[in-house]
Parts: sequence; structure tokens; C-alpha cells
Amino acid sequence: MTGSRHATVGIIGAGPAGLLLARLLHRSGIDCVVLEHRDRAYAERRQRAGILEQGTVDVLRACGAGERMDREGLVHDGIELRFDRRAHRLDLAALTGGRRVTVYAQTEIVKDLIALQLRSGPPLLFGAQALAVTDADTDRPRIRYLHKGRHHTLTCDYVIGCDGFHGITRSAVPEHARRTYERRYPYSWLGVLAHVPPSSDELVYAHSARGFALFSMRTPAVSRLYLQVPNGTDPADWPDDRIWDELEARAALDGAPDRKPARGPLTAKAVLPMRSSVTEPMRYGRILLAGDAAHIVPPTGAKGLNLAVADVTVLARALAHLHHTGSTALLDAYSATCLRRVWRAEHFSYVMTTTLHTAPDQSPFETRLQISQLDRIAASRHAAAELAENYAGLPLE
Amino acid sequence: MTGSRHATVGIIGAGPAGLLLARLLHRSGIDCVVLEHRDRAYAERRQRAGILEQGTVDVLRACGAGERMDREGLVHDGIELRFDRRAHRLDLAALTGGRRVTVYAQTEIVKDLIALQLRSGPPLLFGAQALAVTDADTDRPRIRYLHKGRHHTLTCDYVIGCDGFHGITRSAVPEHARRTYERRYPYSWLGVLAHVPPSSDELVYAHSARGFALFSMRTPAVSRLYLQVPNGTDPADWPDDRIWDELEARAALDGAPDRKPARGPLTAKAVLPMRSSVTEPMRYGRILLAGDAAHIVPPTGAKGLNLAVADVTVLARALAHLHHTGSTALLDAYSATCLRRVWRAEHFSYVMTTTLHTAPDQSPFETRLQISQLDRIAASRHAAAELAENYAGLPLE
Repeated sequence: MTGSRHATVGIIGAGPAGLLLARLLHRSGIDCVVLEHRDRAYAERRQRAGILEQGTVDVLRACGAGERMDREGLVHDGIELRFDRRAHRLDLAALTGGRRVTVYAQTEIVKDLIALQLRSGPPLLFGAQALAVTDADTDRPRIRYLHKGRHHTLTCDYVIGCDGFHGITRSAVPEHARRTYERRYPYSWLGVLAHVPPSSDELVYAHSARGFALFSMRTPAVSRLYLQVPNGTDPADWPDDRIWDELEARAALDGAPDRKPARGPLTAKAVLPMRSSVTEPMRYGRILLAGDAAHIVPPTGAKGLNLAVADVTVLARALAHLHHTGSTALLDAYSATCLRRVWRAEHFSYVMTTTLHTAPDQSPFETRLQISQLDRIAASRHAAAELAENYAGLPLE
Repeated sequence: MTGSRHATVGIIGAGPAGLLLARLLHRSGIDCVVLEHRDRAYAERRQRAGILEQGTVDVLRACGAGERMDREGLVHDGIELRFDRRAHRLDLAALTGGRRVTVYAQTEIVKDLIALQLRSGPPLLFGAQALAVTDADTDRPRIRYLHKGRHHTLTCDYVIGCDGFHGITRSAVPEHARRTYERRYPYSWLGVLAHVPPSSDELVYAHSARGFALFSMRTPAVSRLYLQVPNGTDPADWPDDRIWDELEARAALDGAPDRKPARGPLTAKAVLPMRSSVTEPMRYGRILLAGDAAHIVPPTGAKGLNLAVADVTVLARALAHLHHTGSTALLDAYSATCLRRVWRAEHFSYVMTTTLHTAPDQSPFETRLQISQLDRIAASRHAAAELAENYAGLPLE
């Protein structure tokens, strides 16, 4: 049994990229269909990033998805760096002319966008497994997919791959037509949710000889904590007490014994690999890639979700321009426009990662360079502002 | 046959560090003796650095060694970066509130300081080979040295090692009392003097897929040119035409065929290894290390000579403070004061080096990161100012 339908834009993947794109297109009067392999409960459960750039907040708000974010999100004016047993606060807002970050979990954004989409948006099909994307080099690309046991074909003007690095869309681009740039890091993160209020009002990035630690939060009652661990680490080797002890040791400050984090029960213990990857170009004929389907950053700079939002913002604007004027000029510039920001974020994420982590083969010379750079950020307005501008997010082109 | 004499300060090495220190001490009324293993002609012939930070110029001028530098030195307000076949000028003066660099060869500074020293300074002995430094942990350290076939002993209050990385002073510090941090780079520089006016009024730092190139100058008639080459390169494999061809290829710009450098005869062809090294602390008892005896930087940031000048400026101030007040407070802070600047310069030199060179095992991902960072410097005031402040030189503490 097969069925066939048409949409101007076919979107594969209902993560934040696909859902936000659908929302933006809908508001521009462009019809689309979103196909998501998983069910709704799974999509709403995935634990991912949670630091939103100013520009990401602005886009979510402008498209009507900002109501709960504005109510529940935690606006942060700064972050804290710890190194050499000292603490230095970086005032993002003061250094960037008022740009801030908002702590609001990706999983909450997904819930908000799904609710909007099901209420008033274009079709969103859960359990719809894309099997193949074909005819990308014609003006009628097709998505073959399986939904409720039936085979379907969706013909489109454009197919947008928002289905991640291992998704089907990226691999539908012939190998000769794309190039992937990659780097793997020699360490991973052990991430946990701690059911205890965060020990600090702002995020704390801690460099230490024992490895990196990050103190973050999801809500005023739930902390999100990370420890650098060796690649291949089994979370089972990290009972709660060991995690808390290690977090304390890595964040220790001289002369401040009272700032130890309060302990609480830990859940969602998972090891996250650290990887950089960029696929160029982000377009092949009528296929366009967005978000993780085109690029991966290590989580240190909190750029993954924000890059995905930037991609689909550029893409929605380009598709609206085509819809209203008939010109493909913006669409033709899509890949180059996005890649400038992507490479900036890759470089920033690389610098944050390699400045804050201790590599297994790191020399004492390299450790001293890290401390010198962190000292410089604490001492120089320009070094601090360069970090702050990248962290809070550069304006969209 | 032996002789014995005393000086408040014994200085080993008549490079710019030792000579400038002698000059500064002399002006503070502190007696010293400078011992130099080589003869005067050799000391005045060594080809070394030639980019002076604003602070270095200020110190040379203040101690009466600036007359010829002010007449013949070339003041530069900016540098040019080339990458991705594009050129971007960095306006150092505008980015740093008026700090500039001066092109004036180290070998000329040495000539000026030697002439001053022999005319009116404290004793400067050429051909005086320091054999041993002893009693550093007493208040009467001694230098044993050989001069004109005779053994001598110089007793001092303090011994200052300005005799470079391979000098005797550094090795007179017991191994348990020092730690050396090192990094070797997987490429070298082929440097030449070209007897032809420089092709550009300012220095040109060129990133290219073929490797790094630097267009510098000594005088309005003599260019100083460098090419990244593999470690172990034999200069004999680089005839003049090959060097010119490679310089042209690495500096090539899109749409500017007329900017090729004029060619001329090449001399002083030499391969320079690239190394970072820091010895901590820079003091052991009554021995103090300054300049290359304590630290080496790769030449990319032009920091070696400038760090040496900063060291001896701090040291002369500390010895004058002791002389005038009896307090060792500044002398006790000497190592820590200098090391902050040293590590800043090591980090800056590392970033300049690794951003502009192509490592033998460099991945395409890493090349894209380099281009992204160079693009950022061209686009962001903070990124540009951070480079400019470090390049033009941070103020002395």
C-alpha cells in the first residue's frame, strides 16, 4: 500500500531545527510537511543543550514560541571561569553591549514547538521513517517514507535535512558532491542531572589539573553537571559520590571552602563524545542540510542548538524570498552564508574546548599556555570581549 | 696565572640583554662587569630579530641608546595579514591607542650599546669565557672565567645570566632548582637577506596552503624574508630562484598580479628551528636569568628581543631599588613579575605560529579553523585589538 502527497518543502527530522523551520515557513505562508522517525514522547525526552544565545531567544520569541521560555527561562548576564584555584566572572552583557544568554533546555523548546505545530502548524508526522531522498538534481525531489506500516512518497520543491549527522538526508548527497571536515577530541563528558538547586546562579567553567568540569542548570531546582572523562568511560564506574567528590575537587578555590556544591540525587548519567564535523557545501541540488545534519560542535561552547537555529533562520528567509519574489538569490547563498557562522563557531568551540580541557598527552608547557590564556581573558577587555561576543552569539548576517 | 676582582653585578653575555642591563645599572650608579665569550666583531655580526615593541623603543631611548635608532629605524603603524589569497591590514596604532613597532635590527642595537659601553660604560670584556658560576647560595657568588689565556675570578653581589639557552649560567642552576617547559614545532624558517627594497612598506604575514611566508625588512634597501620549510632543510637545496618563486606563490593575491616582490641577490641564507622554552624560576639564590637564558619563543611573534629588554628593565629597576633603599622586595618579585609577561608572550607566539603555519600532519579541518580565525581578526575589533596589543607589546608592569 502506498500513498503520495506534495508539499512545497519537505522537512526530515522534528528536532529544534526542523520544528522551528516549519514554524517559520508556516508564518511566511509556505506549506511544508515534517517527518519524524521517532514518536512524540521520545522527541520530547531527549536531553540536549540548554544555553540559548540572544539571537536564538529573539527568533523563538518572534515566531511565537517564546511564551514559556520567557516565563521559565533563566536569563544569565555572565559566566564564571575557574582556573589555578581562582574564580573570574565574565560579564557577558557588559562586554557585548547587552547580549545575554538564556538557560532553557532544548527539550522544553521541542515541547513548545510540537504543541504549537500540532495546534496550528503544518503537518507533523511522528513515526514517519524517511527511507530515501531521490531526484535531488531535478526540480521535484522526492522523499520515500514509511508511516504506520505504509509506504508513501512526498514530492517537494525542496527537501530539508534536519535529521542529524547520522540521518538519511546527509547520506543522500552523493559522496563526490560533499566534503566532511572532522576532528575527534581525546576526551568525553560525563553528564548528569542533579536534583538539587545549582550551587551558583551562573554557569561555572572550571579548568583544573584533574580535568574540566562544568556547573550548569536546567531549572532553579535541577542542576546539569559535566565532568571531563576519558573516552570509553563506562558511567557505571561513576557512582554518585565519586561524581560529587570529583566536581568538588575540580572547582576548588583557594580560601573559599564554603562554596562546595550541595549534593543531591543524580539521574540521566551519560557519557558524551566530543567531536567537530562540518559538511560542505550544505546544499546539493534541491536538498539543503541544516543543524547537526551539516555540522557538529563539541558542547563546550554551547553552540550546537544555536547554530541549528541560525541555519533555519537563514533558510526560512531564503525560502520566503523565493516565495515572494521568485528569486533564488538568497537560497543560492544559503550554504556560504551559514558556513561562515559555522566555521566561526567551530573555531570558538575548539578554542574553548582545548583551553579548558586537559588532554591525556598534554605537556606541562601546554598547561601553562592554557593558564596564560585564561589569565589574559581575566585581564584584558579585548580578550574578554572576544570570548563574550562568541559565547553570547554573533548577530545573524 | 690568576686574577681576582669584584663588581656589584657580574653580567655574563654581551647580547642586547647584557649590554642594556649594564647601561641601565651604570645610569643608576651600580657598578658591573660584562663578560663576553666572543670577540666584538662576532657580537656585532649576529643576525637576529628586528621588530621593536613600543616599550623596547622607549627603554632604549631613555637610556641614551636611541639616537641612531630614531634616525634610521622604520616606524610601522601596521602589519598586513594575507590568507585565502586576500590581504587585510591591521592598524596597530589605531587598535592600541597609538602603540607602534619599529624596525631596527638587533645587530644595530648591539653595535650602539657596545659603542656606548666602551665610551662611558662599565667594563666590557670580549673574549672572556665564563667557565663556572659558584657560591650562588651565598652572598658572594663567583664567576670563574678565562681571558687572554689567564684564569680570573669575579666575585659579585649578583650574577646575571644573559648568555642564552646554551650558556653556562642556566646550567649553573642545579637541576632540582629549576624546571624547563618546552615545545618544538614541526617546521623551521628559511631566512634570507635580500639586497632589494622591500616590496611592501609594512611587514606581510602570509598564510598559504604552501606554508607560511614573512616579508620583512632591515632598511629601506634591504629586505628580510622568511619561508616555512620542513625541519632538517638544507639551505643549499634552496637556490635564489626557488626562494623567490616560493615567496611569490605564498603571497599571491586574487586580482593583484602587480604586487609581486622585486627580486634581488640573497645572502645570509640560514635555517632557523622553531622552539618554545621557559625555565622557572628565573632566579636561584644570587643568580638571575634574563632573556634567552630563561626563555625562547618561536620568531613568529617577534617577541624574543622584546622579552629580553623587558626582563632587564625589571631587573635594573629591582637592583636600583635595592641599591637605594636596601630592600630586596622587587628583586624577590623579579621571577614572578617577568614570568607573567613571558607566558603571555609564549602563548601569543604559539597562537601566531600555529595560526599561520601549516603543520606536516595538518588536517583540512585545522586549515579551515586557521582561516576562520584570520577572517575573525579581519572582521572583529576585539579580535584585531587582541592581536595588535600583544604584537605592539603590553605595557611593562
